[in-house]
Amino acid sequence: MKTDYPCPPRFAERFSAFSQIGSTGDGGVHRMEASAANGEARRQLVSWLKDDGFEVRIDAVGNIFGLLEMAGPDAPWIMAGSHIDSQPQGGCFDGAYGVIAAMEAAKTVRERLATAGTAARANLAIVAFSGEEGARFNTFMGSKVYMGGASVEETLSQKDADGVVAGDALEAIGFLGTDTPPPYPLAFVELHVECGSMLENAEARLGIFERWWGAHKLDIRFIGETSHTGPTPMAKRRDALYAAAMMIVGVRGLADAAPVGELHTSVAKLIVSPNSRNVVPDSALGFVEIRSPSPDVMAANVAKVLPIAENAARTAGVTFEVVRDDLRRPGMFDPELGDLARAIAADMGHVPMGVTTLPGHDAIMMSEVSRALMLTVPSRNGLCHHPDEWTDMADLELGAAWLTAILERLVTEPPAPGHA
Amino acid sequence: MKTDYPCPPRFAERFSAFSQIGSTGDGGVHRMEASAANGEARRQLVSWLKDDGFEVRIDAVGNIFGLLEMAGPDAPWIMAGSHIDSQPQGGCFDGAYGVIAAMEAAKTVRERLATAGTAARANLAIVAFSGEEGARFNTFMGSKVYMGGASVEETLSQKDADGVVAGDALEAIGFLGTDTPPPYPLAFVELHVECGSMLENAEARLGIFERWWGAHKLDIRFIGETSHTGPTPMAKRRDALYAAAMMIVGVRGLADAAPVGELHTSVAKLIVSPNSRNVVPDSALGFVEIRSPSPDVMAANVAKVLPIAENAARTAGVTFEVVRDDLRRPGMFDPELGDLARAIAADMGHVPMGVTTLPGHDAIMMSEVSRALMLTVPSRNGLCHHPDEWTDMADLELGAAWLTAILERLVTEPPAPGHA
Repeated sequence: MKTDYPCPPRFAERFSAFSQIGSTGDGGVHRMEASAANGEARRQLVSWLKDDGFEVRIDAVGNIFGLLEMAGPDAPWIMAGSHIDSQPQGGCFDGAYGVIAAMEAAKTVRERLATAGTAARANLAIVAFSGEEGARFNTFMGSKVYMGGASVEETLSQKDADGVVAGDALEAIGFLGTDTPPPYPLAFVELHVECGSMLENAEARLGIFERWWGAHKLDIRFIGETSHTGPTPMAKRRDALYAAAMMIVGVRGLADAAPVGELHTSVAKLIVSPNSRNVVPDSALGFVEIRSPSPDVMAANVAKVLPIAENAARTAGVTFEVVRDDLRRPGMFDPELGDLARAIAADMGHVPMGVTTLPGHDAIMMSEVSRALMLTVPSRNGLCHHPDEWTDMADLELGAAWLTAILERLVTEPPAPGHA
Repeated sequence: MKTDYPCPPRFAERFSAFSQIGSTGDGGVHRMEASAANGEARRQLVSWLKDDGFEVRIDAVGNIFGLLEMAGPDAPWIMAGSHIDSQPQGGCFDGAYGVIAAMEAAKTVRERLATAGTAARANLAIVAFSGEEGARFNTFMGSKVYMGGASVEETLSQKDADGVVAGDALEAIGFLGTDTPPPYPLAFVELHVECGSMLENAEARLGIFERWWGAHKLDIRFIGETSHTGPTPMAKRRDALYAAAMMIVGVRGLADAAPVGELHTSVAKLIVSPNSRNVVPDSALGFVEIRSPSPDVMAANVAKVLPIAENAARTAGVTFEVVRDDLRRPGMFDPELGDLARAIAADMGHVPMGVTTLPGHDAIMMSEVSRALMLTVPSRNGLCHHPDEWTDMADLELGAAWLTAILERLVTEPPAPGHA
């Protein structure tokens, strides 16, 4: 067993360079899916992949795959990656870390096997999935299509808050591809900063996400009627924003009434129309999230959302409709891959901590079609989706080395098919 | 005394043509201040004014004046007009009616005096004030600068919700002028659809706004901190939208607790940032309006807004700031001009109803520097700021004829200086 897994040599340089693309100037990046900055990041990634001998494929929803066919066309695949879109004024680690690390790790694996004369028994692909963040379009835009959970058509026809169609936006940046994606891998590995405080609080440097919280997302639109905010008698107003405000307060109340760590709720996005100070709003679309590690707690609280919306609508004299209902059940990543990652970390002199991810990740989508493993490193103050998001370079490099070792093991000793 | 005041002959034709500019296709117009459609409307108005021999002046905030110097450079001025900007998806009558009617009335007065050989003792100006609606920038953008209540600099440096600067937007449509506006008039007359139901309920065809409700507008920004809506513990969230929602509910509660007709409140516009479904919002700017016919009721309720905001901010763990505080006291239009309008209507065989305006109008700004008179005609169902806004052409023409008769009287027998 090797005990020396160096970080891929160019990881730090490339990650730092990548973080400058769409930089907000204060440590963050503003690189929403299919934006100009996202296009620039995509072109940089493709350029690096081509320089380093990857076969690049861009599929119909803009997913970028970099393929190293090391074991022949009939061999199974191992895949690693994450996403390179960001939240508005987001952090530079979220997603991008896992993509740059996967690219550099894959290359290092290829070189190490060539040097050692070891045969690969699986091919290796890296991926940057489109629109994981859901900041402009639905979350998991790319991985959900790849794993078969959404159609290309419905995904490309989504509109952002300004009415821009996803397909048009991808085409505008030159990433509406036509390539066939690689087959489902035997194993998918995603390395991601924790976006939580469990590792930091325990002073652990490496973590394995063993399970994920569920999230039930309900996009609820209240429909009222415009009128003048001055003369219209209060009793005649059909104020969609007033209804949405009551719903926001009610949804927050669900989490406040639950024991700590059982339930998180939010309404973080609200689209008001016409959003003019003198016009009673005739539409307010709120994006509700109900998150829990427990399917029962989640279901019980989701069941309370519709009565909250109904009551708000009745009080405000408006109607409402659920325009999107998206359930991600709580679940577990592949325990055998977790054991493998633990063993390899032990060889490196580390004891990874078993943790839970509250945010969603592409690996959760991939767990439907593949064994899935998620590796993580600490986030300072647990902060994510903020320019102050931070992980020390030493931890980033340790994580990249760990990923390299795991990918090397997986391509030389592929796991049996099957996923949890 | 004449009893025959015909509607200006081209009024209906021009009003109908004007309503097509920025048409929403369902009877409404979408012609926000300094938008492309607003620019088109402005160019049409200027073209008509020039064709009809008005001297056109565009001032530093885009106000359009059409001057008929009928009594010499030293004579006092009489002014009539309103505004031609609209709310988003607004109605075609609000504002535009008063401008087109004033233009046609002024021309008719000039022709009638010439035909009769009667000397004018005052000059006549018509005006289309910039940005009365406040849909993109502050309300009364143009009339407030003209009457000295706001500086050109602060007015032009305002930004809309997309960050577009007012001065740049006016320049882009070619209406950042350099002309000196005419002096303050002895009398300002605004003809406007009622945007209320008092006339309709009383089956009256003509109304005189005798007084206006006050409006106190407070733009309140809650300042939180972005974080991930998944992992961030509820107790650590600093959710600006949650605070704003509590404020919206609280502000509505003030009106619901008051007797009917004493207090109207609204928060109709809300700007959330970053407004992404996975990011706890760090900013929510709500536009609060407190309206009342009573200064005391208004002040007492405005005094309750800050505690509501404070309480909301404390509960949500955020801070807040009042970024704009704009008081329009309740008041009265000029009673002597009201008596004159009543007498002239009587000559025409009508009994105008004394009514109150709840929305603000440019005439309220003008009442600070001039005698001010507001004439009104019925709004179907009291509806305003909606494509279904409607006034029958017969009522529009009757109002235009009344305005013509009043302007003729004012330029031949100017009132003494002095305003309420």
